[in-house]
Amino acid sequence: MASLLEPFVSRERGRIESVLRDVLPAARARPVSVHRAMRYAVLSGGKRIRPLMCVMAYRACGGRGGEVYRAAAAIELIHNFTLIHDDLPCMDDDELRRGRPTVHVKFGEAVALLAGDALLSLAFELVATLAVSGGVAPGKVVGVIHEIAGAAGTRGVVGGQVVDIESEGRRVPLSTVTYIHTRKTGVLMACSLRVGGLLAGAGPRNMKALSAYGERLGLAFQIVDDVRDVSATPRELGKKRGRDVERAKATYPLVLGRAESLNRARRLAEEAKLEAVHFGKHGACFCELADYVVRRGTPQEG
Amino acid sequence: MASLLEPFVSRERGRIESVLRDVLPAARARPVSVHRAMRYAVLSGGKRIRPLMCVMAYRACGGRGGEVYRAAAAIELIHNFTLIHDDLPCMDDDELRRGRPTVHVKFGEAVALLAGDALLSLAFELVATLAVSGGVAPGKVVGVIHEIAGAAGTRGVVGGQVVDIESEGRRVPLSTVTYIHTRKTGVLMACSLRVGGLLAGAGPRNMKALSAYGERLGLAFQIVDDVRDVSATPRELGKKRGRDVERAKATYPLVLGRAESLNRARRLAEEAKLEAVHFGKHGACFCELADYVVRRGTPQEG
Repeated sequence: MASLLEPFVSRERGRIESVLRDVLPAARARPVSVHRAMRYAVLSGGKRIRPLMCVMAYRACGGRGGEVYRAAAAIELIHNFTLIHDDLPCMDDDELRRGRPTVHVKFGEAVALLAGDALLSLAFELVATLAVSGGVAPGKVVGVIHEIAGAAGTRGVVGGQVVDIESEGRRVPLSTVTYIHTRKTGVLMACSLRVGGLLAGAGPRNMKALSAYGERLGLAFQIVDDVRDVSATPRELGKKRGRDVERAKATYPLVLGRAESLNRARRLAEEAKLEAVHFGKHGACFCELADYVVRRGTPQEG
Repeated sequence: MASLLEPFVSRERGRIESVLRDVLPAARARPVSVHRAMRYAVLSGGKRIRPLMCVMAYRACGGRGGEVYRAAAAIELIHNFTLIHDDLPCMDDDELRRGRPTVHVKFGEAVALLAGDALLSLAFELVATLAVSGGVAPGKVVGVIHEIAGAAGTRGVVGGQVVDIESEGRRVPLSTVTYIHTRKTGVLMACSLRVGGLLAGAGPRNMKALSAYGERLGLAFQIVDDVRDVSATPRELGKKRGRDVERAKATYPLVLGRAESLNRARRLAEEAKLEAVHFGKHGACFCELADYVVRRGTPQEG
């Protein structure tokens, strides 16, 4: 069967890139350093998996307009805010990301910190403009903001990062690893899908399916990421291999081993795929994305 | 003439404190460290001048409801997010704030960084709840979010902090000092007032007056703060004296001297007071607040 995901991704990723370029402050606008750092961080060839999920959910729930792109871009800004802060010396102290020096290595710690802060604010400003000047009903926009703010805070990404840092060098049970991964990745992926659903006016059944799919796929994605950290080449990773082991991070491969971790990821992806039935002809895309996420864990396929 | 400001402040400050206590995550909720750090930072006896300005503007523009308190609390969360990040070692590297160890000294850098991030997200979540469950028209709520996000980003507080850090140890013209102070303080104070105005449904003339008053008073406030840094006692300051000089910060007293700086602050406060006429019987409160801000610059009155 011909892939539905590939043409979708190649079509939509270009559009997402172009919106991101447009919404980021110009590199020559004052204060120059922080604007350059923001553009450097965001426009660096990420996979854009979260904004793609947002657009996918929007189309699958019957959305036909273009307003979804600014919301999708906002989610990618949030994701990049978390990456910049996560890479800082007081956090994971990483010097490479996507094959390039991390933001604080390139621009200094203060500017990196502030560039992260600015991306978080900009994300909310951007979503607010959907109502202020974009013609979207304010009620929908508030719902989207509520969703994103919840996912970014201590019930979501920030909460996951806190427990992640605090678990370094400790023997933690699998439940703690799951807590970290669910919040660091699952919550924002589920949020990306739900934002697409909200903007398309999805009903409660579809919203529930998007949450269930996103949480499972997000957890699978993070498990595969951890497996890749110990098995992929640095070129594939765009950063040093084995950083998690060096920092004694609480990861699935550490607690369960590589093979059993990949089994869990596969099982989660299969569970996620069960939700695809709710999205009719778009369901195939959801299934293909789940398969892609798991495939990343097998080194020969990158 | 009897003061109008004093009873207003003593009445409203208690209400603001109580809303702040309510909206912050419980200290025993997981992840505990970041929630404790957030409460430690925010519930530490600040002057609450920004939320007070928000409530003052709301009442002056005819607002009678209680919805303003959550918005006012959100602005105080944003203010505390900037303080936590500003105090970090890669920024101003301050160890005392309001007479107590700063958040990173008490909780470590990683938790301080994340507590700041979480306060910023929580502020937007909190404002969004005004529409989601608070009965305020979503259009107003989106306007408030747009306003706050703009004030927090690179056109506001973050922009001011970037230029502040980059100007350390350099001879900069007065225009750069004004740029820094306007953005670090003026923009968020003007935003506090405008948010009150927006929620009260103020017309364009009143909104313009709130902006003009807030920008001028914010700049005066920051000039007085800088003068206090070289002339008040550490006990009055709640932190070490002379930190700006140590770090060779670009400040008004450095560029203009103490006396001329205070003259500027007084002139700005007088200009701010001209806007008070737009607020009828509430105008007196605006005038008293402007006088209070300048009075802080004369050590004998603290």
